[in-house]
Amino acid sequence: MTYTMKKIAVFAAFMVAFLITGCNGKAQESAPSALDVIMTRTSIRSFTGDPVSKDQLETILKAGMAAPTAMNGQPWRFVVVTDKDRMASVFGSGPRSEMFNTAGAVIVVCGQTTSKGRPFGQPDGPEQEMPNMFWFEDCSAAAENILLAVKALGLGAVWTAGYPAEDRVAPIAAALGLPDNVKPLCIIPVGVPAEDPAPKDKWNPDNIHWEQW
Amino acid sequence: MTYTMKKIAVFAAFMVAFLITGCNGKAQESAPSALDVIMTRTSIRSFTGDPVSKDQLETILKAGMAAPTAMNGQPWRFVVVTDKDRMASVFGSGPRSEMFNTAGAVIVVCGQTTSKGRPFGQPDGPEQEMPNMFWFEDCSAAAENILLAVKALGLGAVWTAGYPAEDRVAPIAAALGLPDNVKPLCIIPVGVPAEDPAPKDKWNPDNIHWEQW
Repeated sequence: MTYTMKKIAVFAAFMVAFLITGCNGKAQESAPSALDVIMTRTSIRSFTGDPVSKDQLETILKAGMAAPTAMNGQPWRFVVVTDKDRMASVFGSGPRSEMFNTAGAVIVVCGQTTSKGRPFGQPDGPEQEMPNMFWFEDCSAAAENILLAVKALGLGAVWTAGYPAEDRVAPIAAALGLPDNVKPLCIIPVGVPAEDPAPKDKWNPDNIHWEQW
Repeated sequence: MTYTMKKIAVFAAFMVAFLITGCNGKAQESAPSALDVIMTRTSIRSFTGDPVSKDQLETILKAGMAAPTAMNGQPWRFVVVTDKDRMASVFGSGPRSEMFNTAGAVIVVCGQTTSKGRPFGQPDGPEQEMPNMFWFEDCSAAAENILLAVKALGLGAVWTAGYPAEDRVAPIAAALGLPDNVKPLCIIPVGVPAEDPAPKDKWNPDNIHWEQW
């Protein structure tokens, strides 16, 4: 082999190595697609006990706050518990306590059910506490974004019910010190998954009515 | 240049071209990431009038049905209107009728508010219509998945309110022929965007309470 040939061969080998690394690098970095995350997200109820970082929690909460709300009212409020002892004392005594004892954090998605305002057509009247009529829908959309962001970050979570089940709402509201007009919609343990269940296939064309019921 | 050198050079050029194409191909194919879609989705209220294909609508509805539901009850029902005249007659007379007249389809996310079952602790009693206590949360999660899937497909949509605003529920329920125990939660026009508004930045750390309210 001549020196020039060697140079060409070495250059070619470097280019190939560089491009392969580049491609792999991209593939490794590329985040999961939105449709994949939506279609494959499933409830995770068993966690390793590892923590969830504050950075991760803020990304997850930012996703929650990216949901749409009626008249941009943003009635959501979030209580996030990361202290293990506190997680156990607030959430860890029910029939499904294990998941709350191994989660890295618990996000309680709450809604402010009223806001100060004036009734429609009374712009000069006194301010009153007016109902946020759509708060539970706004907060449910935020909760779904939270579940999807959790999945996108490679973590796991499950939506456990709060409002309107008063037997669940009252003790959580008391333990967290919620104001009277703030209700816990759902309680979401978040953590590193210790299980890998197959997503449920819930596609059912019978639930679709074309043009008319 | 010797023949061997030429062979090496040609081989190297082909490898480089192949790998560059491979990388670009991957980049072009890669779907938008879940976090990007969640963070950048925003309400689209102006459409070109172009249709939305049945394939696209089924992907969008499949995303809706991938949401979690309380006790896997799947209380969602969807009425999808694609006929232009019907869209105009059912939805096109309100104050924001323009978006319904230019959308490619309208998805009405409905919830079945009751199901046949037996009260807790009465396994041998007669079946009754039992409330689906969490139907509006299950269906709100489905609606958010629908909005995100729409965005992931490069389309636009907006959540317009139905339940619990009775003045909106009653005429839609009548026009679509919904059974008494099926309520329209929200009405979502879907189409090719004719506007490109910046997403709202709704991140607000004041809405987060760490450990305790």
